[in-house]
Amino acid sequence: MKQRILSILVDNTAGVLSRVSGLFSRRGYNIDSLTVGVTADPRYSRMTVVCSGDDQVLDQITKQLNKLVDVRHIKILEPDASVIRELILIKVRVNKANRQDVISIADIFRAKVVDVSSDAMVLELTGSKSKLEAFISLISDGNEILELARTGVSGLSRGGDYVLFM
Amino acid sequence: MKQRILSILVDNTAGVLSRVSGLFSRRGYNIDSLTVGVTADPRYSRMTVVCSGDDQVLDQITKQLNKLVDVRHIKILEPDASVIRELILIKVRVNKANRQDVISIADIFRAKVVDVSSDAMVLELTGSKSKLEAFISLISDGNEILELARTGVSGLSRGGDYVLFM
Repeated sequence: MKQRILSILVDNTAGVLSRVSGLFSRRGYNIDSLTVGVTADPRYSRMTVVCSGDDQVLDQITKQLNKLVDVRHIKILEPDASVIRELILIKVRVNKANRQDVISIADIFRAKVVDVSSDAMVLELTGSKSKLEAFISLISDGNEILELARTGVSGLSRGGDYVLFM
Repeated sequence: MKQRILSILVDNTAGVLSRVSGLFSRRGYNIDSLTVGVTADPRYSRMTVVCSGDDQVLDQITKQLNKLVDVRHIKILEPDASVIRELILIKVRVNKANRQDVISIADIFRAKVVDVSSDAMVLELTGSKSKLEAFISLISDGNEILELARTGVSGLSRGGDYVLFM
C-alpha cells in the first residue's frame, strides 16, 4: 500500500466536495485525508487529497477524478518536492501537578498555548504528519487528551512551478 | 445570512465524508468550509463544518445531521467561546526587487517562510479567518500570488468541557 497526495484544482461550486468524496466511497477507494479551500481566484478551490492503495488503484483514482467536469487540474505532490502541512488543536486536562510538564512539551515542539482554564489547556501546532504524531504521542504520555481536532493535510509543490488557474 | 460552526463527532468509517457532504448538496445547503481528521481515539473522527443560512435553515441542517447513523455528537462552536484556526500556504512570485518586501509582510504576521527558490517563495500562516484574509490582501498588493492552498477551519471550544467520545 502506497500513499499519494493529490493537489486538485476544482470549480468552486456547491456539490463539488460531495462529487469528489462520492467518487472515492462508491468505488471503495480509501481517503486518508481531504482538505478544501478557495484559492486566490474565487472561481476555483484547491483540494488536497491523501489516498492509499497500490499503484494501479492510485492511477485509476487519478483517471476517474480527471473525468469529473468540476476538476480542472490534478498534480501529484511528491513528498521530497512539496511542502505538506497540517494543523491540530488539542485540549489537555491540566492541574497544578502537570501544567508545567504540558507547557514544556509545547515549548519543545513550538506549539502555541491558545487557551488556559483551571482544568484544561488548548494547544495549537502545525507541521508534517510525523511531527504531529510525535507530539500527540508525547503529550498523551501521562496526560489526558480531552479533545483533538485536526484539519487534514494541505500542500503546495516547492519551487516556482504553478498552474495558471492559481 | 448567519454563519454557524459545527464540531461533529462521527464514526471513522469509509464514506462518512461523502454522506455528510451529500446531505448538504442534496438539500442545497451551502458548506463554506469542511475539515475532517481522526481523533485521539481512532474509532472516531471530528469534522468542523462552517455553513451559512438563516436560523431556520441552520437548525434544519443540525437536525438532519443528527439523523445520520455515523454522527455521534454535534456541538455548535460559538466564536466567543471557541478557538477557531485555519492554515494556509501561499506561493508568491519573488525577484530581487520584492523579496525583502514579502519577507517583511511575513514577519509582521509571523508567517513562516517554508520554501525559497530563485523565483518563488512559499509562506505558511495559521490564524483566524480575518487574520488570514488580511494577510492575503496585504501580500497580493504589489506581489503575484502563484498558488494558494488552505485547509479550511478547525476548532475546539475553550475551557474544560468535552464530550466522552474524545
